[in-house]
Amino acid sequence: MKRYEALADDIARSIRNGLLKPGERLPSVRQSSASRKLSPATIFQAYYRLEAQGLVESRARSGYYVTRAAAALPPEPETPSRPDGESREVDVSELVFEILQSAMTRDVVPLGSAFMSPTLFPLDRIGRAMATAAQHLDPWSTVDDLTPGNAALRRQIALRYLIDGMDVGADEIVITNGALEALNLCITAVTQPGDAVLVESPCFYATLQSLERNGLRAIEVPTHPRDGIDLDALEAAIARHAPRACWLMPTFQNPLGSTMPEERKRALVDLLARHRIPLVEDDVYAELHFAGKRALPAKAFDREGWVMHCSSFSKSLAPGYRIGWVAAGPRAQEIARRKLTTTLNTNVPAQIAIARYLERGGFDRHLRRLRTTLAGQQARYLEVIAQAFPQGTRVTRPAGGYFLWLELPEGADALHLQQRASRMGISIAPGPMFSASRGFGSCLRLNCGHPLDARIGTALQELGKLAGTSPL
Amino acid sequence: MKRYEALADDIARSIRNGLLKPGERLPSVRQSSASRKLSPATIFQAYYRLEAQGLVESRARSGYYVTRAAAALPPEPETPSRPDGESREVDVSELVFEILQSAMTRDVVPLGSAFMSPTLFPLDRIGRAMATAAQHLDPWSTVDDLTPGNAALRRQIALRYLIDGMDVGADEIVITNGALEALNLCITAVTQPGDAVLVESPCFYATLQSLERNGLRAIEVPTHPRDGIDLDALEAAIARHAPRACWLMPTFQNPLGSTMPEERKRALVDLLARHRIPLVEDDVYAELHFAGKRALPAKAFDREGWVMHCSSFSKSLAPGYRIGWVAAGPRAQEIARRKLTTTLNTNVPAQIAIARYLERGGFDRHLRRLRTTLAGQQARYLEVIAQAFPQGTRVTRPAGGYFLWLELPEGADALHLQQRASRMGISIAPGPMFSASRGFGSCLRLNCGHPLDARIGTALQELGKLAGTSPL
Repeated sequence: MKRYEALADDIARSIRNGLLKPGERLPSVRQSSASRKLSPATIFQAYYRLEAQGLVESRARSGYYVTRAAAALPPEPETPSRPDGESREVDVSELVFEILQSAMTRDVVPLGSAFMSPTLFPLDRIGRAMATAAQHLDPWSTVDDLTPGNAALRRQIALRYLIDGMDVGADEIVITNGALEALNLCITAVTQPGDAVLVESPCFYATLQSLERNGLRAIEVPTHPRDGIDLDALEAAIARHAPRACWLMPTFQNPLGSTMPEERKRALVDLLARHRIPLVEDDVYAELHFAGKRALPAKAFDREGWVMHCSSFSKSLAPGYRIGWVAAGPRAQEIARRKLTTTLNTNVPAQIAIARYLERGGFDRHLRRLRTTLAGQQARYLEVIAQAFPQGTRVTRPAGGYFLWLELPEGADALHLQQRASRMGISIAPGPMFSASRGFGSCLRLNCGHPLDARIGTALQELGKLAGTSPL
Repeated sequence: MKRYEALADDIARSIRNGLLKPGERLPSVRQSSASRKLSPATIFQAYYRLEAQGLVESRARSGYYVTRAAAALPPEPETPSRPDGESREVDVSELVFEILQSAMTRDVVPLGSAFMSPTLFPLDRIGRAMATAAQHLDPWSTVDDLTPGNAALRRQIALRYLIDGMDVGADEIVITNGALEALNLCITAVTQPGDAVLVESPCFYATLQSLERNGLRAIEVPTHPRDGIDLDALEAAIARHAPRACWLMPTFQNPLGSTMPEERKRALVDLLARHRIPLVEDDVYAELHFAGKRALPAKAFDREGWVMHCSSFSKSLAPGYRIGWVAAGPRAQEIARRKLTTTLNTNVPAQIAIARYLERGGFDRHLRRLRTTLAGQQARYLEVIAQAFPQGTRVTRPAGGYFLWLELPEGADALHLQQRASRMGISIAPGPMFSASRGFGSCLRLNCGHPLDARIGTALQELGKLAGTSPL
């Protein structure tokens, strides 16, 4: 744990146990720096993190104050999931589609949506890059940029890995129609129907749907709502089931928001390499961190080429452009060939446009703004949830992304809640969507990626009220 | 057969058997109209068709003359293929990738390419439409235009069906990443690994690769190089193998260029409906006809919903944009859901751009120009092939598309020819790429979709010479 993280956690504890009360002022950066023997920059980072968590707020020329909501924030979920350890066929698609379909109009309050507000992206600047790319298209680029994809874009992606200190060459990158295609290409490249695949519990429903479609069995592994998958349980599952692949989101997991600490990511990669199990790493939320630094992916610790790192620009820059990629290591050619026979290629002007946007700079500036926005939104959602949801509700406070995971009090029925909310024009993502064994019946995922306006505020209030009334 | 087609065939026969000699003038339109009791428009259509076939040429203010090359054109292949009737696992991908990879640079003469010259598309106008779409993107369209896809585009596609007199609603259309994704979604929706699928012989290699990847067995059915698949043989194969699907290109088949006459398409659909076998119809070349009218697809005769009609704008309007679709009838929702879990969505600005281009008009004007260009190119390629290739070579003269299928004289080895040509910087597509049973060893597909410039002319001469020398 970084120093600023330790400091922030320390202060957060003081707030939660009442040592620091709502409205009280934190020591100034200079005071703290002196008393704690830490650099002012570290103090600032810690305060910034607390602000992102909604625990403190800055007041102009006056310093940082404990928010009124801080003390009242519901506790975080603390218990790792406890799936039954079986491997099983997946049959979740019908439920997922039913729920998603009910949420696919603008009229519905998008608390169950998987997308953040499209208004948070620099669609104007990307649109201009797209206009230039399309109007000056070299006709031959429609052939040259065939899978594995546009060379300039692959180079820009490789450069971003390099900035993180990772050695990922442009030649191991394959451009795909969003991360979802990358993930599907990877999992089908390393499995046969009937094989078992290790996943988190809870697990992103699109992962479960992919397993279902490809006739793969899911082994749900206990996962902590803050620190991610349990490595001991993972090792036990490997011994028991001889799985052929592992498909995880080690950073800002969907739906939990959990992130494995880097040393555990390293241990994960070592463990899988030892058992020669490929890791399909879904890392689409990595850029949306609130803590000042990108968490390294598991891929960063991959020395033998077992990790296929999948990501995209859909959550960070250009939704609807469908530009994703996989850094597939030694499997790059195999993945490229698989793509050549399934979708052949990815929209060429969009590839060029994003390459151009990245070359011009401005991505990091946009990301800084976006992260601040998302951190602030999370804080505001947490405040409303704190006072609207029934006593006993637990809520995650992920350090990035735009999902909150709620554990409702014992006995709550999230599927029932979803139906009642749906009738009021509010969508939510109930826990059973995220589980092959239909667990998490009292949990739900809420999207905090939309600015908390009056409509959403009201919806959260109503939802909290619904959650507090007995399910008929 | 239409009147103008009958007339054109009649004249073509006269040219081939020497009644009409190179350099001779055809009767004027007025004369023919009077003597044959046909309208001048019909005569014009017939002459136009003959011109497209390279048999006659128009001279300004002077009329139509038999071309010098006409009499010397090599004969067409006349024998249907004779596959062995077995169903078999497919193992062709490695060969196909090797050959394609050797052809994937601009330096190589693209006679083996699957793409026509990108310079033949209105990339400027499409680029402007794309620029407008990207710069005025409603942020919410990135969510609203989620699969099944942009409503305006689906409506425009439905309108084009309507012009052909077909009743295909926008609600049965799913937008895809090119036709290849549509085809793959369809075939996986109606089969399980191990199932047998009916295909043409020869068969587009991407079809074989898809069967291979999905663990499906291929049943190659005899196919005539002009009239397409043999329905009696198809019925026998159904009785013998109980196939679960049929995957065909009834119009301008790749590689043969064959087109099933409409009454045979109707019989095909009836036959498959009787046996409850879904037809995956690949119709990507339909717009590239030389004969003045679009051939109706098999889908036009589908009353019970067994035909999934797949096409795209990649061959007709916007290569590299990856906008395809399937008109999937009652299976539309199932196909859309399958896409939601594999690639989620198709590039949104590109969908809007093509919808806008179609709304503004100009597509048909572009197509008319493109068809004339392609017909002329085919004629010129045929002329060069006629004098460059060895005696005994047979060549198709498809009424659309941009592929020629050559049967070399007995004993020729197309794979060997491909290797020797490749060393000279010339790509070709040898017959065995198009066959699960590695048939067609003395055949090859040539691309005539690139303007016949000096480089290509020289390459054709060299190729002809190579084909005439004994292997080794």
